[in-house]
Amino acid sequence: MKLSGRSIIGFREGSGTPDLFYATNPANGEPLQPGFAPATAAEVDLAAQLAAEAFAVYGRISGKEKAKFLRAIAANLESIASELVARAEQETALPKARLQAETARTCGQLRLFAQLVEDGSWVMACVDRADPDRKPVPRPDIRSMLRPLGPVVIFGASNFPLAFSVAGGDTASALAAGNPVIVKAHPAHPGTSELVGQAIQQAVRECNLPEGTFTLLFDNGTKIGEALVKHPQVRAVGFTGSLAGGRALMNLAAARPEPIPIFAEMGSTNPVFILPGALQERGDAIAAGLHTSFTLGAGQFCTKPGMVFLPPAAEADSFAARLQHLVGDTPQFNLLTAGIGSAYRAAIDRRKQDSNVQVLAETNSPFAERTFCAGATLFETDAHTFLKSHGLDAEIFGPTTLLIRHAKHEDTLKVARNLEGHLTATIHGTEQDLRDYADLVAILETKVGRLIFNGFPTGLEVCHAVVHGGPYPATSDGRSTSVGSQAIFRFARSVCFQGFPDNSLPEELRNDNPLGIWRLVDGEMTREPATQLARRQS
Amino acid sequence: MKLSGRSIIGFREGSGTPDLFYATNPANGEPLQPGFAPATAAEVDLAAQLAAEAFAVYGRISGKEKAKFLRAIAANLESIASELVARAEQETALPKARLQAETARTCGQLRLFAQLVEDGSWVMACVDRADPDRKPVPRPDIRSMLRPLGPVVIFGASNFPLAFSVAGGDTASALAAGNPVIVKAHPAHPGTSELVGQAIQQAVRECNLPEGTFTLLFDNGTKIGEALVKHPQVRAVGFTGSLAGGRALMNLAAARPEPIPIFAEMGSTNPVFILPGALQERGDAIAAGLHTSFTLGAGQFCTKPGMVFLPPAAEADSFAARLQHLVGDTPQFNLLTAGIGSAYRAAIDRRKQDSNVQVLAETNSPFAERTFCAGATLFETDAHTFLKSHGLDAEIFGPTTLLIRHAKHEDTLKVARNLEGHLTATIHGTEQDLRDYADLVAILETKVGRLIFNGFPTGLEVCHAVVHGGPYPATSDGRSTSVGSQAIFRFARSVCFQGFPDNSLPEELRNDNPLGIWRLVDGEMTREPATQLARRQS
Repeated sequence: MKLSGRSIIGFREGSGTPDLFYATNPANGEPLQPGFAPATAAEVDLAAQLAAEAFAVYGRISGKEKAKFLRAIAANLESIASELVARAEQETALPKARLQAETARTCGQLRLFAQLVEDGSWVMACVDRADPDRKPVPRPDIRSMLRPLGPVVIFGASNFPLAFSVAGGDTASALAAGNPVIVKAHPAHPGTSELVGQAIQQAVRECNLPEGTFTLLFDNGTKIGEALVKHPQVRAVGFTGSLAGGRALMNLAAARPEPIPIFAEMGSTNPVFILPGALQERGDAIAAGLHTSFTLGAGQFCTKPGMVFLPPAAEADSFAARLQHLVGDTPQFNLLTAGIGSAYRAAIDRRKQDSNVQVLAETNSPFAERTFCAGATLFETDAHTFLKSHGLDAEIFGPTTLLIRHAKHEDTLKVARNLEGHLTATIHGTEQDLRDYADLVAILETKVGRLIFNGFPTGLEVCHAVVHGGPYPATSDGRSTSVGSQAIFRFARSVCFQGFPDNSLPEELRNDNPLGIWRLVDGEMTREPATQLARRQS
Repeated sequence: MKLSGRSIIGFREGSGTPDLFYATNPANGEPLQPGFAPATAAEVDLAAQLAAEAFAVYGRISGKEKAKFLRAIAANLESIASELVARAEQETALPKARLQAETARTCGQLRLFAQLVEDGSWVMACVDRADPDRKPVPRPDIRSMLRPLGPVVIFGASNFPLAFSVAGGDTASALAAGNPVIVKAHPAHPGTSELVGQAIQQAVRECNLPEGTFTLLFDNGTKIGEALVKHPQVRAVGFTGSLAGGRALMNLAAARPEPIPIFAEMGSTNPVFILPGALQERGDAIAAGLHTSFTLGAGQFCTKPGMVFLPPAAEADSFAARLQHLVGDTPQFNLLTAGIGSAYRAAIDRRKQDSNVQVLAETNSPFAERTFCAGATLFETDAHTFLKSHGLDAEIFGPTTLLIRHAKHEDTLKVARNLEGHLTATIHGTEQDLRDYADLVAILETKVGRLIFNGFPTGLEVCHAVVHGGPYPATSDGRSTSVGSQAIFRFARSVCFQGFPDNSLPEELRNDNPLGIWRLVDGEMTREPATQLARRQS
């Protein structure tokens, strides 16, 4: 496949503006061909118009047809996997194995949603049958199910060029729910984005879907993204990125004449609490696991553990020493973009100058002084200082973490109560620790979307139960997840039908339940046809 | 029970400010004793602090305990029903029978939510079991369920002094999910509010719940409501009222340092489409039903049908004539408040001066020229004018509706496509009409929360399947409902537990499923213990 450097607007090629931008290879700082043309305001309009037209068709096709489409995307991605990984390697300097695994994860996500919508039970169908004999007034027949919202705008993230980008979880869940999708490509990996966009466009054609089902727009500024979020035809937004960027889009979405839901996942510092029993039993293993976790992907994960609370025990010293050693031996990393590189360096410098914090260790080996390069850094402070200081709980995107020493039980609870929203919180403990710190778990449950026991927050499992969300500022809406099958609920709304003849209802709501889905019929969960049930007394 | 005229802050009586306000009897315009003291900023703080403390306990009690509490509220309301109805009659001038029915509905709603949380399956428990043998990496054990958000602020509505007020659906659903509730009483029925507040406070005591579980604050301005929405301890907001009021609160919630979800139900014009076959078959019956529906409760329902599209048929004339006759014979109404009265009169006067619109009929009988009094008014225009004009689709709160004549099939679709969000849309048709207008149904589905066939939008059924929501401006979040059991989902968020020992998990997530709830285990819906299932191949 050839890269055109142009937006993909339905079946059309965008022309864009002449100020081309280029991806940069973080391994050497060199620009990559071809140049990419930022989309125009007219192309935003065209994409939104096509998406609105497509919605009238795509929003009403069956779960089976949507599953076929999602699987076609996965198959098309797999057929270009080596090309895709090669381009992504150039654009991100991430290891090939990681990018291969991420391609597999991306295809796996698409197939998870395919399975979900083919099965069909996700629509939460609800049937409350009529009771003409009810006194004082007859009970009407009321049936509801989840329906799509309309055109959805998705912003690709820089740190997962595949799994959280053009065909990532946001796109997969929005398409699965029945919404046309307009992706704003992340400018750090436009080539990877275009290849994925071509694969989706081809799947749209293969499945004879309306062309506006999918659009990919390029821009290396904020103009096109803003225009998309403000566009009257757009019905919802998915975003993964920085707090500043996410909040700006939240404000735009809220200020529209007609506000729309926005689901922004904006990162997190992911507190880790190491409890006394676990520290005593296996401090070294935890130190090794923690080191792997906070340096994984050069620390550029929204689940990176960025603050670690240690109890006042002798083992805490050897834990810190072990980690010091590991961090010193950590080789240099290539960060994803020059912007991430300078932000990381600036944040590390600021923290080094903070008198409340000590540098425990840094990558020992000399490393290139290029913007994209960075070593690992381990900081330390104590719980008392942490509670008094501002900004020590802020996310630093990159391979660094902060140890907080001497957290007594009471301090630990106090720290936990003062936490903002995070995506995850991790506890390392024995079963006895867990009993002793039940109050800690209770507090953390109100602060995060995912609680991890004796594991690490990186390496997120894509499944039904997973929650990749959390109260603000981790996300814009702590009631949502952007990973796993529950992500589909962001892009759907319940619609109810009162008094409609059976044959005019969507299949999901008909008496005979032709799709065999799980439904709540007169308050009871069942897959049986509604007509075979005895009528409930009401 | 004695009215104190003071806020109920947990178990304490507020002192408030000395500028007492009084309810007014709409039947005679006379003020009612006692005076009510607006809450203070310090009382907002106290309420929020108590609610946050209560959340640590109330947020974790079992479904059974919450059910007991909700039923205790219902029982306490029933034990003061005659007193409650008498006071509500004075404060609203609504008919006694209506207020008795509304008391029953309010208690019914509380018991619906009691049943829902006692049953327990509403938490959408999800169990994805570990697979230590999975390659390339073991699959962790991940389990999720819905958990409450924290203190929720509810604004009572004027037009349902019981069912959408202090112990209405918003409060019932927020409490059912496990959230402490702070109600801002509507100033039009403070006495009714205080009586209901006392009943809830008593239930909190009877069930030995923390005092901050419930607070009721008075204010006849916007200060206390604003302070509540901005308070850092508050986690979500429920509101029923005007578009202007709702949007102001939406803006406040979005502008907080930490934005919170707000569920504002802001009314609607509820389009009605009368299709040719139905008009021919039973025009008179539809006219009679429509008249009852738009004058019910003096037209002060958010489901009032405020615009009615008629096809170009001879029967349309006799339909309009029939309705003219009915409207002429309609007696005068007492509106709920002076504010509603003047807003209604002003809107009617503006519409009368609109050259695009004709007055077809008005209440013939002379009626009192008091602010609270109003007659019914029937307006008419044509589809062409309607499409060109601005504001003819705006809600007028009160006993009026607008006929739109000569809507041909194409006009009907055009009108439907141009609709903003509404709570409901109604279609009167034969089965043949429904086939001929399948495209109309498809469009309306994207515009409203509830579609009604051959019925009327007023007289909302409280059940599992009902959706009382709709895209903006009907509500702030078209993905939500404020009526029916699905209303609970507004006030809950999914939290997931990774790798926790079985005995440390909430009961809903344990292997043996001690509550016997429906769960998604490894992707399959079941009530069986997780351990008895064969492991799925992954």
